Amino acid sequence: MKNLINDLKKSVLFKNKSSNELENLIMSANYKIVNLYKNETVFDVFSSTNYIGLVLSGELTVEKILPCGKLVVVFNKSCGEIFGEVAVFSDAEEYPCRVVAKTNCRIVLFSRKDFFKILTLDNDILYNFLYLISNKAFYLNSKIESLSLTSINQKVAHSIINDFNVSNKNRIVRLPFSKKVWANNLNISRASLYREIDYLCNNLIVKIIDSNTIKILDINKLNSIYLG
Amino acid sequence: MKNLINDLKKSVLFKNKSSNELENLIMSANYKIVNLYKNETVFDVFSSTNYIGLVLSGELTVEKILPCGKLVVVFNKSCGEIFGEVAVFSDAEEYPCRVVAKTNCRIVLFSRKDFFKILTLDNDILYNFLYLISNKAFYLNSKIESLSLTSINQKVAHSIINDFNVSNKNRIVRLPFSKKVWANNLNISRASLYREIDYLCNNLIVKIIDSNTIKILDINKLNSIYLG
Repeated sequence: MKNLINDLKKSVLFKNKSSNELENLIMSANYKIVNLYKNETVFDVFSSTNYIGLVLSGELTVEKILPCGKLVVVFNKSCGEIFGEVAVFSDAEEYPCRVVAKTNCRIVLFSRKDFFKILTLDNDILYNFLYLISNKAFYLNSKIESLSLTSINQKVAHSIINDFNVSNKNRIVRLPFSKKVWANNLNISRASLYREIDYLCNNLIVKIIDSNTIKILDINKLNSIYLG
Repeated sequence: MKNLINDLKKSVLFKNKSSNELENLIMSANYKIVNLYKNETVFDVFSSTNYIGLVLSGELTVEKILPCGKLVVVFNKSCGEIFGEVAVFSDAEEYPCRVVAKTNCRIVLFSRKDFFKILTLDNDILYNFLYLISNKAFYLNSKIESLSLTSINQKVAHSIINDFNVSNKNRIVRLPFSKKVWANNLNISRASLYREIDYLCNNLIVKIIDSNTIKILDINKLNSIYLG
């Protein structure tokens, strides 16, 4: 129990809650804890939407398989993050995405009823949940903007600026997935993505630190590419 | 007051609430009622996110202007529908979209604080709100799927099936906007859209009823185009 409470405290959902408050809340609802091996599926596409999950340790990916067979990673979920909440409260009867363990994971699952009960018992948690779900819709909105862009250089510039929580201090971008998945997410070929990154490097707009890390050198030039 | 309550009762947000219950709730919060002329702007892009709106009469559009100047209609909002809720509860400080009156409108605006108060006072309304906001995220998700499709015939087929609440009975699709806006939303040219509709008509997959109405004649064939 103590472990669970400590893990839950890392989540934005339970921000500013004391261990005692959390323990009382969790005791008043049913939940189940599940341990998963790497590559195990948590929710499959077309399975019915009964549970909201929260990652206690490890990492998950929420992915969509397009009709053409291409895989798009919609979200990466790590310690403290919730998943499945949109499908559970919407009128979807089935999950639209597959949720898969990227590493060994420990998760906690709440039924819709139990999760809703927690929300009604504590206004802070309700506010945090509205924040999380709104940010998700906001992120999806920005992804639509990115996909609506037609030129490859606009798409890549928009993605570097908007998709990865760039730190304002040092302007370091950490890719949470491979360049192959990134290219799929942008709906462009891997070759086009590499070509565009080369262009940005040659013009001293970004610098490659390592295979997963990019540093933005000239945010103004990057912005002006995105604005077309 | 009686008019306001009757209009609010039409909203999914206040589903199953009696006039008395609604009156008590509304009395406990601040709100302002605004009358708008056609083409007036309610929220502009980059204005600060303080209010959630609900349409009492008339129609609004929520639109996004892409860097290239193209206009994308993200949502149409009619009587009973809410808008601005995602921006208000997310960490966005500015509205990402412009909200414009499509016809003369009457709307009610609640501040974040007052709206949140209403949610905490009534569990049914809270549940309805979670339903609305989740459905929005779900819709945005499906739009991402549509934009990620590469071929024009897949995009059009996906859009006809998913974007317009096709009635299951008679399979009638009503376009809430012009074909120009539809083409923009799909990120294809108007000529391509017309060509694709002609193809679908010639193959007896859909039939054009009038400029805003399409009837699906063969949903299986339409599905198989979308699935590629």
